[in-house]
Formats: sequence, C-alpha cells, structure tokens
Amino acid sequence: MNLDYIIHDEWSIIEEGFNPDTVKASESLFSIGNGAMGQRANFEESYSGPTFQGSYIAGVYYPDKTRVGWWKNGYPEYFAKVLNAPNWIGINVLVNNEKLDLYTCKEVANFRRELNMKEGWLSRSFEATLQNDVKVKVESTRFLSLSHDELGAINYSVTPVNSDAEIVFTPYIDGGITNEDTNWDDQFWDILSVDQKSHQSFLQAKTMKTNFHTCTFMESKIFVDGKQTDLSYESEKSSTYASCSYAHQTLKGQTYTIQKFGGYVVDRNHDESELVAAAKKVLKEANDLGFDQLLERQKQSWKQIWDMADITISGDVKAQQGIRFNIFHLNQTYLGTDARLNIGPKGFTGEKYGGSTYWDTEAYCIPFYMATKDQKVARKLLEYRYNHLDRAIENAEKLGFKNGAALYPMVTMNGEECHNEWEITFEEIHRNGAIAFAIYNYHRYTNDYSYIPEKGLEVLIGIARFWHQRASYSTYKNKYVILGVTGPNEYENNVNNNWYTNYIAKWCIDYAIENINKIKSEYNEDYTRIMSKVELLDSEIEKWKEVADNMYFPFSEEHKVYLQQDGFLDKDLVTVADLDIAQRPINQHWSWDRILRSPYIKQADVLQGFYFFEDHFPDEELERHFDFYEPFTVHESSLSPCVHSVQAAKLGRMDQAYTFYLRTSRLDLDDYNHEVHEGLHITSMAGTWMSIVEGFGGMRVKEGKLSFTPRIPKQWEAYSFKINFRNQILKVNVCQNETTFELDNGDELAILVNGELVVVTPNNLVTV
Amino acid sequence: MNLDYIIHDEWSIIEEGFNPDTVKASESLFSIGNGAMGQRANFEESYSGPTFQGSYIAGVYYPDKTRVGWWKNGYPEYFAKVLNAPNWIGINVLVNNEKLDLYTCKEVANFRRELNMKEGWLSRSFEATLQNDVKVKVESTRFLSLSHDELGAINYSVTPVNSDAEIVFTPYIDGGITNEDTNWDDQFWDILSVDQKSHQSFLQAKTMKTNFHTCTFMESKIFVDGKQTDLSYESEKSSTYASCSYAHQTLKGQTYTIQKFGGYVVDRNHDESELVAAAKKVLKEANDLGFDQLLERQKQSWKQIWDMADITISGDVKAQQGIRFNIFHLNQTYLGTDARLNIGPKGFTGEKYGGSTYWDTEAYCIPFYMATKDQKVARKLLEYRYNHLDRAIENAEKLGFKNGAALYPMVTMNGEECHNEWEITFEEIHRNGAIAFAIYNYHRYTNDYSYIPEKGLEVLIGIARFWHQRASYSTYKNKYVILGVTGPNEYENNVNNNWYTNYIAKWCIDYAIENINKIKSEYNEDYTRIMSKVELLDSEIEKWKEVADNMYFPFSEEHKVYLQQDGFLDKDLVTVADLDIAQRPINQHWSWDRILRSPYIKQADVLQGFYFFEDHFPDEELERHFDFYEPFTVHESSLSPCVHSVQAAKLGRMDQAYTFYLRTSRLDLDDYNHEVHEGLHITSMAGTWMSIVEGFGGMRVKEGKLSFTPRIPKQWEAYSFKINFRNQILKVNVCQNETTFELDNGDELAILVNGELVVVTPNNLVTV
Repeated sequence: MNLDYIIHDEWSIIEEGFNPDTVKASESLFSIGNGAMGQRANFEESYSGPTFQGSYIAGVYYPDKTRVGWWKNGYPEYFAKVLNAPNWIGINVLVNNEKLDLYTCKEVANFRRELNMKEGWLSRSFEATLQNDVKVKVESTRFLSLSHDELGAINYSVTPVNSDAEIVFTPYIDGGITNEDTNWDDQFWDILSVDQKSHQSFLQAKTMKTNFHTCTFMESKIFVDGKQTDLSYESEKSSTYASCSYAHQTLKGQTYTIQKFGGYVVDRNHDESELVAAAKKVLKEANDLGFDQLLERQKQSWKQIWDMADITISGDVKAQQGIRFNIFHLNQTYLGTDARLNIGPKGFTGEKYGGSTYWDTEAYCIPFYMATKDQKVARKLLEYRYNHLDRAIENAEKLGFKNGAALYPMVTMNGEECHNEWEITFEEIHRNGAIAFAIYNYHRYTNDYSYIPEKGLEVLIGIARFWHQRASYSTYKNKYVILGVTGPNEYENNVNNNWYTNYIAKWCIDYAIENINKIKSEYNEDYTRIMSKVELLDSEIEKWKEVADNMYFPFSEEHKVYLQQDGFLDKDLVTVADLDIAQRPINQHWSWDRILRSPYIKQADVLQGFYFFEDHFPDEELERHFDFYEPFTVHESSLSPCVHSVQAAKLGRMDQAYTFYLRTSRLDLDDYNHEVHEGLHITSMAGTWMSIVEGFGGMRVKEGKLSFTPRIPKQWEAYSFKINFRNQILKVNVCQNETTFELDNGDELAILVNGELVVVTPNNLVTV
Repeated sequence: MNLDYIIHDEWSIIEEGFNPDTVKASESLFSIGNGAMGQRANFEESYSGPTFQGSYIAGVYYPDKTRVGWWKNGYPEYFAKVLNAPNWIGINVLVNNEKLDLYTCKEVANFRRELNMKEGWLSRSFEATLQNDVKVKVESTRFLSLSHDELGAINYSVTPVNSDAEIVFTPYIDGGITNEDTNWDDQFWDILSVDQKSHQSFLQAKTMKTNFHTCTFMESKIFVDGKQTDLSYESEKSSTYASCSYAHQTLKGQTYTIQKFGGYVVDRNHDESELVAAAKKVLKEANDLGFDQLLERQKQSWKQIWDMADITISGDVKAQQGIRFNIFHLNQTYLGTDARLNIGPKGFTGEKYGGSTYWDTEAYCIPFYMATKDQKVARKLLEYRYNHLDRAIENAEKLGFKNGAALYPMVTMNGEECHNEWEITFEEIHRNGAIAFAIYNYHRYTNDYSYIPEKGLEVLIGIARFWHQRASYSTYKNKYVILGVTGPNEYENNVNNNWYTNYIAKWCIDYAIENINKIKSEYNEDYTRIMSKVELLDSEIEKWKEVADNMYFPFSEEHKVYLQQDGFLDKDLVTVADLDIAQRPINQHWSWDRILRSPYIKQADVLQGFYFFEDHFPDEELERHFDFYEPFTVHESSLSPCVHSVQAAKLGRMDQAYTFYLRTSRLDLDDYNHEVHEGLHITSMAGTWMSIVEGFGGMRVKEGKLSFTPRIPKQWEAYSFKINFRNQILKVNVCQNETTFELDNGDELAILVNGELVVVTPNNLVTV
C-alpha cells in the first residue's frame, strides 16, 4: 500500500486536510462520470500546483500515427488516444482582485472533499486565507447527471469570513487544452467556433483526423445568500475560450454563489449542424428543472443502480468502502445504454492505455454486468464484437491470415487495432479466446441461446479459423504448437506455447464445432444462412479438429504443473517473497529486458485458464498450480488479485483470499501500484465484484442452476449481494454461520448450496 | 536478382538509356563520397519525376525522440537520423525559358551515366528535346574531392543542337530540404544566415537539438566554348536559399558551361564562428587549382587507394565490376582519417538505419581496413569504442547492470544508444562480443599487442562484466543460460540461449581473463593502473569463470548441431527451397509475427560463430551446421552471403561460394533484395572483400603467420589481391593452376600455403 489518506466510510470517499502531494491522486479517486462523459476531480477555481487536468467524452479519440525506427509489415497504423476534451468546469474566482488558488494561499483550513457514491455527487469545502489576508469559506457540489447524460452541474459558493470582499466569478469554457500524455506535442482539436450570448457560451470543436464534432457549453446563474440575482456581467471571448465575469461586493458572512451548468453534445447523437441547438435544449431542460431537482434525480438514479448492484459488508468499513467504490466507478463508466461504447480500462479518469476496449470487457466485466443489469446489457457488449467482426477479419488479413480468420484487436475504439506495439498487437492473441469465452459465458448464465445462431456463431467461426491457421505443426514435438505469443502475463513476450493461449485456442475450436453442430441440427435456417455467408466446408472443420485434438500443452513432470510457456523453467526461479521490496513494483524499477527474463508474473496466466475452465481440473490440480505460480506473481496488473482471490477462496484459503480482496477492492484507494495519479483501474473493478460473488459467495452456474459455496472472511460479520439471474433478483446474505437467500418475485428458483439443492420461493427467506 | 541494367565494365558503373523507373536505384548506385561527405547521384538540373534527394555530412545527425505507446524502463531516449543536408549541387537550367527536366522532355536520347571508380568521378551525358523543340546536348562531370574533403566540383555543359537558344544556368544552394525518411514531419535544420557576394554564396545552418553548425557554400564560373567568360548575373536570396543566374544566348553548336564548386564546412573541424571564412578558404584553394587540376588530384588519390586495395579478377567482368564497386564505396565512406567517424551501413547513399556505427564495423569492416590500409586505421576504429566505454557503461546501468559492466549500443553516433526498438537495443547484445572479438582480431593480425594494455583491456573487462551479469543460472538445466536475446538473425526476437550469443559470451570472459593474466605478468604497470581504475578483484574474476565454464549451449542430439536457440526445432522447418518465390523477400511480404515464428534466418547466426571461431570446430562440424542452417537462410541481410561464401569456399563448394560471392558483390548492382533505391549496403561490402580474400584466397592468420588455401571459381581465369600484413605489402595472384606471391619490400615473409611453409622474399615472385 502506498497511500492511506482516504477516510474510511461506508458510502463516501472522503479526504480531509489539504495536501498538494495528493492532489493528483485525489483527482483520480474522486473522478465523476455518467457513462457518456466523465472527468477527473479537478478544482473549478484555478490551481497552480501539480495537477492532471482531464475531462473525457465517451467514444471521442484520436488516432496517433505509429512511429517506429524500422517499420515492419503488419504493424498497426495508429495508437488511439483518449482525448482530453475542452474544459467546461472552470470558474476563476477573484477575491479583492487576488486569484483564489489553493496552491498559493497563505492557509487552507478545514479542507474536505467527499465523493458521495450513494447519491452520485462530489463536494468540496475549505477555508482559504489569501495572500491579501481575506479569508473565505468555499463550498462546491458537482455532479454529472445520469438522467441527462450530456449535462453536468456545479454549485459553487464563496463566503468572506473576516471582512467584506469583492468576489468575481469567471466561469469559462476552454478549448485550449492538451493531453497529459505528452509523448506527443500535437494538437488534437480544431476549434470551429465560439459563441456567447446572454449567460450562455458554446464552443464547437472537432477532433483532428477522426472529425468527431462536439459542442462544449455552459450557462451560469448567480445567487446572493441563496437568492438568485441578475448581475451585470462582462464577457470575454477568444478563438478557443469564452467566459463571463460576475462581480459582487460581498459582505462579510454573505454567501455568493454561482450555479454553472455545462457539458458536451456530440455528433454521435446529434446532427453535426445541430450541436448548438442540442446544447441549448440541454440547458433549457436543466434550467426548467434547476440544480436542486436535477440533484434529486441524480440521487434517484443512483438509488436504482444500488438497489440492484449493491454489496454490503458488515463489520469491515474498509472492505465495504472498497467494494462500493468499485461498483460506483463501473457504473460511472458504462451503463449499457449505447452499443457503440464499451468499458475503457481507465474509464474517464485518465488517459493511459489509450483505447477503449480490451479483453478486460469479456474476461472481467461481462459477469458483473450480466448479474447486476438487465441481460441486454451483456448482450450489447457481445454485439459490440459482432459489429466489429469484419474489422477483425481485416486485421487478421493484414497479418497474412486468410479465409475469414478473425483476430480481434488487442485495443480498439472502432474495431481496428488501436495499440501499436508488436509484442501486444501481433502476439497477445489470447484475447480472441476471451471473446469466444464471453459468448459461452453469456449463454451459460442467461440461457439465452438465441445470440449464437443470430450472431455469435460467425464470431466463433472467425476465431476458430484464426487458431487453426495460427498453430503450426512441430515435427519435433509431433504436436501443434503456437509460437511467438504474449500470454496474459505481459511480462513475457514472444514466448512459445503459452499454456493459456494453447488451451483456450483448443477450446475455441471445440466450442465452435459444438455450436456448428447444434445449430445445424436445431437452427437449420440459421445454419444455412451462416454457412453460405462464411463458406465453411466440413473439410475445413476436419482440419480444425486435427489441430485442436493434437494441441501441445507444456507440462513439467517434475513439478506436475502445466508450464506457462516452453522456457519458464529456465528462469531464475526466485519467488516474490525473496525479492527485495525496494525493487517493487518491478515495472517501475527494472528495465524491460530484465522483466522479460525474470520469472515474475504480472497477472494470472496459467491460473487465468484455471479460472475460465475451472470445471476441467480437479481442485488438487488447481491447488498445485496456484502454489506453483502465485509465489512468482507480482500482481502488477490490476486484473491479477481478483482471480487469485476467487481461487484462494475456492481452495478455502480465506486469509489469502481476503488479502487479495482488499488488494483488488482498494487497489486505487490505497494505491498499491504507485500509479493512482494516472487514473483508476476501472475494468479490474469488475474483478473485485467477482472476488466477492464468485470468490466468497462461490457463485457458479452449474447445469443451468445457480450454485453457491458461501464462505466468509473472519474479519467480516456478514456480507450480501444481489444478482439478476435469468430475470429474477436473488439476494444472498452470508453471515459467519448461515446464508440466507431471498427472491424478489417471479417463479421459484432451484439453486445449489454447497452442492445441495435448495428451492427459493419469492419473498421467502431461505436460510442455509 | 531484381535489376540488370548496369553495363558490365571492369572499372566503371555505366547506365545507358534514360529510364525514370530506375532513377532512384541509380541515385544510390552512382553515389559519390569522400569520407567527410557524400551524396546520392541526384541530377544537378531539376527533375520532377520520382527521386530521392540526399546529401549527407559525416557525423551530422539528429536525435529523434523515441515515441512508443507504453514507455518502459530502459527504452533508449532517441533514434538518431542521418540528416539530409542543404543541397549544393543544384543547377537549374532554362532553355528558351523552359526548365530542363528529363521527366518532362519530349525525348531523351543517348543518356549515359558513368561512375568511374578508377578515378573517382561521376559523369552524365544526354541529348534532350524539350517541349519547345529545342534539342540540347548536356554533359556533366562531378566529384567530391579526396584531396580537399570539404569540396565538391561540377562541370556542366549545355550545347544547343538544332537551333540557337537562350540558356540560363541558375546554380543554387538550398536549405529547404527534408528527409526522405518521412515517418516524421519535423524540421531538422535551423537556417541561420544566407550570404551572397559576387559569385559566391554561403548558407549557415545548424541542426536542431544537436546544434551541429555547418556552412554550405558554392561558387560558379561560366565558360563559352571552353573559354571562361565574365557574364553579368542576377542573384536571388531567401531565408533558406541563394542562387545566381547566368544567361547566355547560345548559338547552335556552341557549348555553354558552368563550373560549380561547393560543399560543406562543419564545426567539428572549424570554430563555429569561422565557418564562412573556412568555406572561403576552401573556395580559394579550389579556384587556385581549378577544376582540371582538382580532377587530376582526384585521380591520383584514387590511384593510391587502388594500388593498395584493388582486387583483380580475370575472365569475369561482372565479378570484377562487383568487387571494385564494393571497394570503391567502402573508400568513399570511410578513409580512416578521423577517429570520431565510423562506417555507416548506408554510408552517404541513403538514410535507412539512422545511426552510424553498428557491429558491422567490428565484424565485417575491420578485416578490410586492416588489410588494405595502414594498421593505424583499424586501431582508430578500435579506439572509437574505447572512447565510448563510459557511455557503454552508462547504457548498461540504464538497464540495471552494475559495477562497470559495459553494453555497447547496437547503433550509435556518439556512444549512446541511437536505436529505439527494444528487441534490438536490449536484446541484440551479441554486438558486445564482436567488439571484443575485434580486439582479438586486431592483435592476431597486426601483432600490435600494445593496444590491449593501453586501452583494450578496459573494454574487455567491461564486456566480461556484462556477460557475467547478463547470464543467469538455470536450476533446471544446471547451467548458465542467457535468456531473452536477439541473435544475429534478427528474424527471431527474445529467444533463449541463442547459441552464438552464449558462445561469444563465454569466449569474451575467457579472453578477458587471458589478457588480464598476461598483462598482470608482462605489463605490470598497466595492470596496476587498470585494476585500480576498474576495481576488479580476483573474487569477481572467479565468478566470471564460473559462468564461462558452465555456459549452456543448446544442441540437438538428433541433428548433431548446435541449436540457434532453444525453440528452433519447434518451428515449421520448411526450407527456403520449398518456399514460394513470390513470398520473397519475406521481410517485404510477411507480417513481422509470421517472420518471427518462421524458421527463416536473415543472416548467418550459428554460422557467424563458426566464422569467428573457425579453429574451434573441425571441418565436418562446420559442414554439418552449414548443411543444417543454410537451407533455412534467406540472406535478407546484406551481411549474410559473404560469410556463407567464405564457408562454402572452405568446404570446397566452389559453385556455391561463387553464387554467394556474386550475391554479395552485386547485391546492390543487381538489387537482390529489392531495396537499392533506399541506398547501398556499405558495411557488407567489406564482406565481399572477405569472400575473396578469406573465402577464395583462404587467407587466415595462424600462429602469427599468414596462411592461404587458394581456390578459384571455375568461372575465373585468375584473381589477385594485395594485403598489408604487419606493414608489408603482399600481392597474391591466384590462377587456375598456380598461385604466386609477391612482396613489395622489407624483410622476407614466411607464410603458409595449403599448410606448407613458403618464404617470400621482396621482389621475388614465388609460385606455388
């Protein structure tokens, strides 16, 4: 753990006391979002200390041209960057002509920041003594509306405490922003127009190259002691900026308040020529409702989310805060309302990782969204990939694959590969497996088979074709091998026979064939349509089978474990326990070549396979592999602790499971990996959910039935979660000596608890 | 072979007939240079067709910032680019107000271009009919002076053939140039001043970031029918450009000539404030001598080079042209006069490969320069690395190595790593071995041991330390392994136990220890100085020994060969003979991932080790390895055919050796690798020399004596070469049935011929 300043609270993230050193971390932790846009918790007033300014619009990105020393065939053309969008939250504050700036104040007292997760708002209050000795009390509240997802609202008050003072609020919108990710110095935005009229301002801009058109807007109202006041104002405008200034001679003790509405409208949802009109419409609705009613709706919207998705933990406020923080941010990032969007690894909290969609979505996020939302949301996430199938086929063609083989990109915004390092794009091909697995997982959980004949089978066929072509025959081994890959452990590149990759490749082929056969016999019309579209002959399927049936799996007779890759045992096998703590995280202390040849594992690799295909291996095999690999695992991927927590719980190692749980749930809150200032790890937050529901709760779907093997860490009195299983809401409450199940409505539900059949009927608490 | 338009000639490279499709290839092939600067054979007059304009100054480069998606520790900071320098050769020609441009002429007849290698000049002649129907005959001669290496000279004549015509010559210098390598759009030059006075112009410019100051200059003279004429002229100047225009109403049949002197002076050789003065001095000397005398000196300078370095081949003009082309370009690139310079892989003929110095220098070029120049030249090349030792230690430190371990950069301009792909910079560490081997090779050849106590030992110690630290112990193999490398075959990255790397690593340690012991006993003063400088204890040496004595060498019992790397046998072992010719060169047809997992070898890898350490292996082992690896070798590195030619000759496979010889010597002339338009492969040209002297001539140094096993391809009547061995010039002439040896002067020389001792006395032909 690296940071420990967040106050433990069940429903809020709270920081007390002002510390410039943690401003960037807090800007990440207190980020707000509503699925359509999001922003780091930057201050409204100006701040001259170290800060990372960021406001992001879903789906708006920039394709940065890949630049390498020596170009090689098949290199992806560009690296997509999440773009910092024009700033609409800014309010400069002058106090007797001195800029309010917490970094230059004489004193900052009673600083408090709260992100209220229950209700979905961010607040800040402090008392600042300026260099001119005026002391002011400041209070602000900000939220991005869930009910109006193009809108954000700010209520910002200043009260002079020790004297009268002239306060000037200058709310502004500003297109003169850059990206934090300053490897490049390019400009990303063309500012097209800046309009200002009355209290409203509109800044139209388009992204370079991608030509996403946006309109950033704002409108402000002024209040004195809570009463709206029609002040005269001075406006200012440049080619990238618009502001209005509202000056008021404020009496000592009087509260001078600005309410600012702002946000973005984008051409994904509106005609490009109608953006200002659309923005005006948003502002009109905001004005009609007013700040307080909008905030009320915000609370209602979040209540609905929590009613479905909350997990309670009794007796461990730190753990409780952690899980809610995770659920909260997942819902801030993706709400399942737009099939063109997906879940970025940093959500709206930073710029790292550039692209929007990784295998994280399929491997980690889909279970969370399946169980806490309507199942249409998960289906939308699957459709996202179906809609990109042609691009995945093109991507494979660029690498020389043929005949409809599909290689989904490692990172994407639009179906194309958006990452640009060959060891990732060419080699981390296992992502294809997770995309197929998600189809299986969706069907297993929802029992909605219709997706497969309608769309999923084409994806499965493209993926099976890829694996068939990508494997090669080794005369030496008399097996099919998969050479030159990067497994889930990105701390190894270009290795041969990564077990996880080989295993999921075989599984993908087998699963595709199974579904082809099923659809052939049960959905003949679909079968005919699909086969004529993909031109798949039985002879080709036979070749797939040859590969799947003769896939090589590296295995150590000495250790009785599958080997992560052919060369793993050659490494200097010093466990993490024997690694100097000062060297960690190794990705910040070691050169890349040293990491590559070290035995250290970034995240579950062989164990990821044991997680997906748990039923294929008896528990003692899991245990042996867990005991072999976990000691080399540095968990420097946010996706690592959750899988290990689930598996430790399965093995009954509750202390270890609990430690991993804390690490996953408080990864960012406690900044385990020394990088929270760069943004939060959104996709792994779904892993935190897994570690409770699948780990402690032991939830699985077995032969169409929900199954539980509830366990509880000794640190907790109880915990509860709700899940939507096939359109029924089951609430599970686990105490130290019993577990209760409760069904909201609908039919009775037969579940398995520790292997025993239990029937839960609606509105009857069942205790086990 | 891809191109076949160069006319076969013993001493010249000749092109006849104008073909726009080969302009870029010819611009490479006809390049001229003088060690200090060089240029592609661009036309003086303007040309609107496809062209690659390039003029380069030795030692002038630009550090392009490395830009990657995800930065990792130890990534090199920049990629050095060879910079296209301001153009000084340009002469716009107007004929009755129409620009002379071979791409837009109605007709081009009798086009002939000649690069006279014997005398070191480039000429061009043609008859062009312009759109205005004026037909002119044009003749030009250009050279870069060896005697005045800041100077170039052009003699350019136009004769109207079918009518009188107004001819305007507009010689210019132009700083508004860009790099062909347009991955980046940046500007590289700051133009500081443009001065013009009388017939002289000076353009001062500095490179961005590196701040190399240069002055590009020109002066012109006008002649009518060979008589110098003082014409009035119009001058033009902009912030990046200066020109003078000389108009003359030229009668039909009259010859209007411009002589232009130009070139560069740089702050490596002059005070930055004195550059214009230095340029004026160059021009004064040029004017004092005049074009004809300068050309005469040029011929003399080249005569001296050829007297020492020529190789003759009788009965095979194609082969003769090839070897001279290679020797000529090597001498155009590096003459051994400046220890701050080195031999760039493309010389002054293109921009690819960015940096100046690769392991090519040590592995391929030093034998050529040792044998065809004074041995001081080779020693200068060794000193280049000694002077960079501190930087090599810093480079290793950046990767986490300690205690004086040195990792020389893969590519460098200034001692720092100038390449920026991790698979090369971190991993292609075998270059350290070649740098140590060159020290051994220099001593073996020259018997000048003094270099080692003076300088070389420190380099050897830094390198031994690196290998000791870079190897790791494999419990599984109970050996030391070297994981995660790229061998000489760059078509594999991040492999384990590349045999060549492991072998040379062990050798480096052994050789360092051997020299430490020798210097300890024979050069005690040096020993004390060095040991106190490098702080080397016996206990550390013991640890080196432990690694060297227990190094792992992958070996296949089945094939009885050392394996290129641990995973080689897992590959799909289809030989090149069974590879579709349409797929070749694979680096232009296949994606990088496919290349990486293919068995195809870019250049000698295991065989490179057999080349360096020939004496360590009996011939039947060489034969087995040659037969195993050569069939997988695509020779897509220019450095490949030469080593194979030497080895095929050693194995008595003269047809194969001859094929490889043609491929190496005519690699660019016949454009085997479809890339001659990008520039020539300069460093591999030294390999061509090897393939004759070491291959066919079988020259080695054995126990301090020159040794020969002369062979001759059946296609040749005879061939001869001269070598400087320990300051004596030995001429070797090999015919089909005898070999003669001839010594210029000095003491008698005992040599081995086919293992028999032969004593050669000065000025006595010895026939064997």
